[in-house]
Amino acid sequence: MHDYHIISWGLGAMGRGMARLFLEKNQGRIVGAIDTDPDKIGRDLAEIIGWPEPLALTVTDAAETVLAQKPGGMILLATSSFTREVLPQIELALKYGWDVITIAEEMSAPQVQTPELAEAIDRLAREQGRVVLGTGINPGFVLDTLVVALTAPCLSIQKIRAERVNDLSPFGPTVMATQGVGTTVDEFERGLADGTIVGHVGFPQSLHLIATALGWELDRIEEEREPIVARERRQSPYVVVEPGRVAGCRHIARGYSQGRLVLELIHPQQVQPQAEGISTGDYITIEGTPTISMQIQPEIPGGLGTIAMAVNAIPLLAKLKPGLRTMLDLPVPRAWLQRRKK
Amino acid sequence: MHDYHIISWGLGAMGRGMARLFLEKNQGRIVGAIDTDPDKIGRDLAEIIGWPEPLALTVTDAAETVLAQKPGGMILLATSSFTREVLPQIELALKYGWDVITIAEEMSAPQVQTPELAEAIDRLAREQGRVVLGTGINPGFVLDTLVVALTAPCLSIQKIRAERVNDLSPFGPTVMATQGVGTTVDEFERGLADGTIVGHVGFPQSLHLIATALGWELDRIEEEREPIVARERRQSPYVVVEPGRVAGCRHIARGYSQGRLVLELIHPQQVQPQAEGISTGDYITIEGTPTISMQIQPEIPGGLGTIAMAVNAIPLLAKLKPGLRTMLDLPVPRAWLQRRKK
Repeated sequence: MHDYHIISWGLGAMGRGMARLFLEKNQGRIVGAIDTDPDKIGRDLAEIIGWPEPLALTVTDAAETVLAQKPGGMILLATSSFTREVLPQIELALKYGWDVITIAEEMSAPQVQTPELAEAIDRLAREQGRVVLGTGINPGFVLDTLVVALTAPCLSIQKIRAERVNDLSPFGPTVMATQGVGTTVDEFERGLADGTIVGHVGFPQSLHLIATALGWELDRIEEEREPIVARERRQSPYVVVEPGRVAGCRHIARGYSQGRLVLELIHPQQVQPQAEGISTGDYITIEGTPTISMQIQPEIPGGLGTIAMAVNAIPLLAKLKPGLRTMLDLPVPRAWLQRRKK
Repeated sequence: MHDYHIISWGLGAMGRGMARLFLEKNQGRIVGAIDTDPDKIGRDLAEIIGWPEPLALTVTDAAETVLAQKPGGMILLATSSFTREVLPQIELALKYGWDVITIAEEMSAPQVQTPELAEAIDRLAREQGRVVLGTGINPGFVLDTLVVALTAPCLSIQKIRAERVNDLSPFGPTVMATQGVGTTVDEFERGLADGTIVGHVGFPQSLHLIATALGWELDRIEEEREPIVARERRQSPYVVVEPGRVAGCRHIARGYSQGRLVLELIHPQQVQPQAEGISTGDYITIEGTPTISMQIQPEIPGGLGTIAMAVNAIPLLAKLKPGLRTMLDLPVPRAWLQRRKK
């Protein structure tokens, strides 16, 4: 029986799910709830996350006040996808002596795109004797940690190809916009150019994690984004896509070593792929000795998977040395289940 | 660039493959080769393992002389499947200050069947500041480590079912005998009764590793072995199985918690399953939230996989604290590849 002290920082769909899942474990308490949404501030956390019992914990945007409490513990941080945006939050958390688990995609390996920020986080975490870990379903598991684990029975590897085909239908307006769902092809191209359509966030991190684990130096990485144009009408609770419009973004990342393609990660994200006979799934092929060809059908759901990866990391964090850590420093990741009562 | 010092102890097919794979990494030297086979003793290791360059290393059965050299290093131990049989070898290795990686199936979690021996190994390893690790493809990966890794994105789990369907055709007379291949059904039943036919070695270990990782207390485990009777003629380099004879052993292990079946591991091992339209593969289903259904087809080859798992553990061993360790203590396992030269 543990008595974890957790702060839920960021109460969007992911943060709310993480708070609920943590409470279900019955292995500690949520001691703080931080969000900047005026509709949430001042309300009880139980009401926000749909927890059946009162938690006597009011959502606040006064982060520093929440963090100043003793004796500290862990923060579940679900406020943004980007290292630059979570950096001040992580620094504040570390200064007050809290470990941080974040689902910010870029934080799964912030050293790739922002090495100076990663260095600063690592230094501060070591000074404070705390751990910072980025995780999630992708990046964090399907297109990196699981890929790496599947190389364990290999004598040699020529190339790795991994593909995640998922359905965006459950997601809301923000995801629809960043994936360009419902746009014309022209609008999609303009969105890519001006950065409003981004596709998947996390490919440089996944490439980095795999290459580092395998000791490969990548001399070049490239990313490619193209519209997935609907041939049939597709519909979700948040959007209707008429034929000829964009149903999603096919995003591909490639890593080259000595000029040779060694890593290819493919992630077409779209609403209702089933409408055109496309099955969702996670597919990994390690081309080597032996070649290993894996599939998971349907794909591991992104929302549930991200919530679980973050909360399941809580009991593993004690195994890590202070500093900025990645999923590849952890012991084999695993579910953290409710104790079965005798 | 590392300079690992390795002793190859046990030069059967697995031990020879491990020695070759280690040498291919070009990250150290084999400093000792131990075997008790009179046909191997006195010959150069290069000749025994088919290594193209002379190694100036003579195979010997004088284990203690080999172990007495300084400064020590790691032993790749491939002499037996059973904890009792490798125990004196491990104890001797530890006394002389060597880490041990063994593919003895029972050593993947010796605390299950021989807790007192596991305790003795753990104590001695701690005293000596050394690590002992059991690994392999199964137990060691497919039906335990990989199963555990696939639970990482789960919020809850009701039951786990994992099946490994493989082809025994590449294996020699010893495996044919212990699996009962070529026997009549009567002979198979008698073989089970008198212990000459054993099926798979390692199920109690795999059940233990999964249950421990998930915090499940198993109040009962059971194993079941039944003959796979050929309907068509099956043939391998070592055996012909006429219709009506036994082509292999279907071995099942089940783990119960609070009287409920929570873990089911299924491993039918037979020669030439394709002769009757059976595809080989590794299949894992985590029934929970979410349910995750994985397949690898064909199965990860057992021989290559075991060789790779053992050698790939070499660079990860430094991450472990002294003592008797399991695959679940390691960081996410991964291939150890030759450096790509710039």
